[in-house]
Amino acid sequence: MKLDRRLVIKILEEKIKSEGIVLGSDILKVNSFLNHQIDPFLMSQIGQAFAEKFSHENISKVLTIESSGIAPALMTSLQLQVPMIFARKHQSRTLNEEFFSASVYSYTKQTENQIAVSKRFINPGDRVLIIDDFLANGQAVQGLLDIINQAGASAVGVGIVIEKRFQAGHQLILSKNLPLVSLASIDRFEDGQVVFSKQGETSHVN
Amino acid sequence: MKLDRRLVIKILEEKIKSEGIVLGSDILKVNSFLNHQIDPFLMSQIGQAFAEKFSHENISKVLTIESSGIAPALMTSLQLQVPMIFARKHQSRTLNEEFFSASVYSYTKQTENQIAVSKRFINPGDRVLIIDDFLANGQAVQGLLDIINQAGASAVGVGIVIEKRFQAGHQLILSKNLPLVSLASIDRFEDGQVVFSKQGETSHVN
Repeated sequence: MKLDRRLVIKILEEKIKSEGIVLGSDILKVNSFLNHQIDPFLMSQIGQAFAEKFSHENISKVLTIESSGIAPALMTSLQLQVPMIFARKHQSRTLNEEFFSASVYSYTKQTENQIAVSKRFINPGDRVLIIDDFLANGQAVQGLLDIINQAGASAVGVGIVIEKRFQAGHQLILSKNLPLVSLASIDRFEDGQVVFSKQGETSHVN
Repeated sequence: MKLDRRLVIKILEEKIKSEGIVLGSDILKVNSFLNHQIDPFLMSQIGQAFAEKFSHENISKVLTIESSGIAPALMTSLQLQVPMIFARKHQSRTLNEEFFSASVYSYTKQTENQIAVSKRFINPGDRVLIIDDFLANGQAVQGLLDIINQAGASAVGVGIVIEKRFQAGHQLILSKNLPLVSLASIDRFEDGQVVFSKQGETSHVN
């Protein structure tokens, strides 16, 4: 079953409003349906929404980072009928020449992680769609783009379940001329409540 | 589309034979389709196979551990139409009274991890199906059972994509009178090749 994409966005926004917990000025916890407990029906609809949006891009691989990106990326890849790859977070010492790797700084945790993808799984000529659960400062997407670049492959777009539009990641992706589809786009937090952007979920450049 | 379960097992065994890499006496790497790059069609069939096997158990939650368990657990939960929860690996210092937690020792990495599940997501009365990608010594399953027990919920079975039947986990689960469904059951490694068990994929006690 496939719901209309606008309805999927509506359901997602309602879930965020009713179950999301705003902490401070820029943290949103949605671990009841997105990144600890998962609502598989909603996740399936999210995957179908991304697949529809990028169906004409001739995508050959879907790429994400463990752990929270795996569910939406898997559902998207199922619909697009292409393999999904999740970058692993590594400690530097375990990396070797079999991997593409990049550094990702987490502002939330204030830690630097190495992420890595086996060189066997991304090749020149691959057309890669990046999927992730959250977009904040864009460091994770930046790391994945770095890996795609090392592989000589092409990034064809970025699909995000929830973006905090007021942080740097949104502009970072647009500045690279990459199509960005953010299903739920948060304009700001106000008195502990989520205010969604009126701009709609898609930001294409050109 | 749902393939017959025996065909799913056959496809899985062929993938293991053609793409799996045996390292030493007890390590099997299957990162081309199971736990780094993922074949979404096969994963969907795996989820449907588990769901069929446990369809009469009135399951209310599917439980796994990040990261490699997420894909098969998500596909199973989609089919059973119940929430999926993935336990998070934590450093002890970040845990608090909001979480059920347990220690899991990894023989492969020779490290001890804390795994944790928010108390909000498993409740007394829940009937929980455990899903994981691999079964070796059973430490991960043991940790999840510990958490289910702390919650006052019931574990109703364990679904494993690939079990190494010659290690301790298989007997550990049976000794607890838990139904165990292992789709691919490896009897032993012989000259760097995988030899599958002739016992079939299901081990019920009673």
